[in-house]
Amino acid sequence: MPVLYDKVALIGLGLIASSMALAMRRAGLAGSIVGHARSADTRAVALELGLIDAACATAAECVADADLVVFCVPVGVMDALAAEVGPHLAPGACVTDVGSVKQAVIAAIGPHMPAGVHFIPGHPLAGTEHSGPRAGFAELFDKRWCILTPMEDTDPAALTRLQDLWKGMGAYVDQMDPAHHDLVLAVTSHTPHLIAYTMVGVADDLRRVTDSEVIKYSAAGFRDFTRIAASDPTMWRDVFLTNKDATLEILGRFTEELFALQRAIRRGDGDHLHEYFTRTRAIRRSIIEAGQDTDAPDFGRAKVK
Amino acid sequence: MPVLYDKVALIGLGLIASSMALAMRRAGLAGSIVGHARSADTRAVALELGLIDAACATAAECVADADLVVFCVPVGVMDALAAEVGPHLAPGACVTDVGSVKQAVIAAIGPHMPAGVHFIPGHPLAGTEHSGPRAGFAELFDKRWCILTPMEDTDPAALTRLQDLWKGMGAYVDQMDPAHHDLVLAVTSHTPHLIAYTMVGVADDLRRVTDSEVIKYSAAGFRDFTRIAASDPTMWRDVFLTNKDATLEILGRFTEELFALQRAIRRGDGDHLHEYFTRTRAIRRSIIEAGQDTDAPDFGRAKVK
Repeated sequence: MPVLYDKVALIGLGLIASSMALAMRRAGLAGSIVGHARSADTRAVALELGLIDAACATAAECVADADLVVFCVPVGVMDALAAEVGPHLAPGACVTDVGSVKQAVIAAIGPHMPAGVHFIPGHPLAGTEHSGPRAGFAELFDKRWCILTPMEDTDPAALTRLQDLWKGMGAYVDQMDPAHHDLVLAVTSHTPHLIAYTMVGVADDLRRVTDSEVIKYSAAGFRDFTRIAASDPTMWRDVFLTNKDATLEILGRFTEELFALQRAIRRGDGDHLHEYFTRTRAIRRSIIEAGQDTDAPDFGRAKVK
Repeated sequence: MPVLYDKVALIGLGLIASSMALAMRRAGLAGSIVGHARSADTRAVALELGLIDAACATAAECVADADLVVFCVPVGVMDALAAEVGPHLAPGACVTDVGSVKQAVIAAIGPHMPAGVHFIPGHPLAGTEHSGPRAGFAELFDKRWCILTPMEDTDPAALTRLQDLWKGMGAYVDQMDPAHHDLVLAVTSHTPHLIAYTMVGVADDLRRVTDSEVIKYSAAGFRDFTRIAASDPTMWRDVFLTNKDATLEILGRFTEELFALQRAIRRGDGDHLHEYFTRTRAIRRSIIEAGQDTDAPDFGRAKVK
């Protein structure tokens, strides 16, 4: 594929940034890639792994002359970061981010963007429970969705170029209104993560069942919760603080449903339970048909050594 | 390995029974395997796949002369099944089951067991979201735990032989008190399943987020819930009806914790959230070290075609 950006600046060098670097290199999408992380160790690792061609000690230095700047940091620090780099952005540069919420990111970054810079918020829906520059892999975005939430006055050419970058990194690209994005993600990501964190916390807290029992017998269902409950704590703290309204709305719906099922258990209402469990089965089939998961038994984990 | 049982009778021919048949054949543990399922179609499929050497139209017929009888049916029908086959069991035969709860199974089966028959309740902690005789595979129990809950007067030789069978099928074997089993499973399996069913039900129910959005963007976390929420509805209805007390206890703890996190979100208490999310991360590491899950990125699902 052709080079889409001559100089890409990655601010933050964690799982997403390192995977973007590898995916851009795989397809030859970037002339050069520079990066900044607060930790000197992280910068050294990113250089050593060949993720970036040069490491910058400051974010401001990093964005100079870059025609694409990607904010790959927790949502809570985007405001300060945008304030720092705003004055150093090159005219005509595109600024995007990979944050899990979009309204709060727009409020944090938008005011700091100078005229002539194209700010296009983005969110690749991909990740693992691992963090840091060593966690990245080039295939992370393959067949996963990246949602862009452009503004009304977004330059069409800048938008097309950023879409092409994500497609070149293997992703499917969608556009969405920022408020709708935050609601959809509250359902598909934020509330499930909070629930998984809660379930793992309960298991860890119980005195009547030991940790070693929880671990040994986790394959019975609990295991599936622990992966998402092992995600980066800082990132998730910021998600819940900045997508408060949508998350609380979906949590309210969740507890309402949970109490109805709890009452059915208490009353011995087997028909209610059976009907509910039958309905939820269909949606799984749709996810597999949409290519968003594997149908292999046990996720193919049966072959784990 | 040596043949441990001359004639094994599998009552019920679903995922667990079909996997047991394949695992027994893989290691040569059974002289012959016969099976019964209520549906003639299921019996025909089991014969066609070579899971069983003979199909019996009734459970009573099936257990005659068998030295091992395995109840692989939902917990809710075990009482009636035990009443039916009790008078036909061979003296000295071992009767076991694979039910997900143990106190209720003992109450259902125990009274129907004639003197001289060894009843040893069991529960292999393995499964997938698929059902039926075609869902089975020989590796299902490899490196997974099977919990036996023997009675005080259980014959040691019969217990050893059944343990050897499970080990021969690839499993690790543990013994546990039935009440403790039911509590441990309420934590590691029953409550997680109920929560997953609830979350999937909420997503399916919302009118403001479409089903197709939930499906497309499921890789962001929701996906991990849908697998366990696709498990067999009848089996799970019976689990909740028969392990009511332990499930309701753990659900109570869960909602208590969830409300505390919900309050932290509402109040913007980032420290509480960060501390909680850090603590839950450690338990994931322990599960991987215990060999109960893979550390591969995205469960290795990155390579899904």
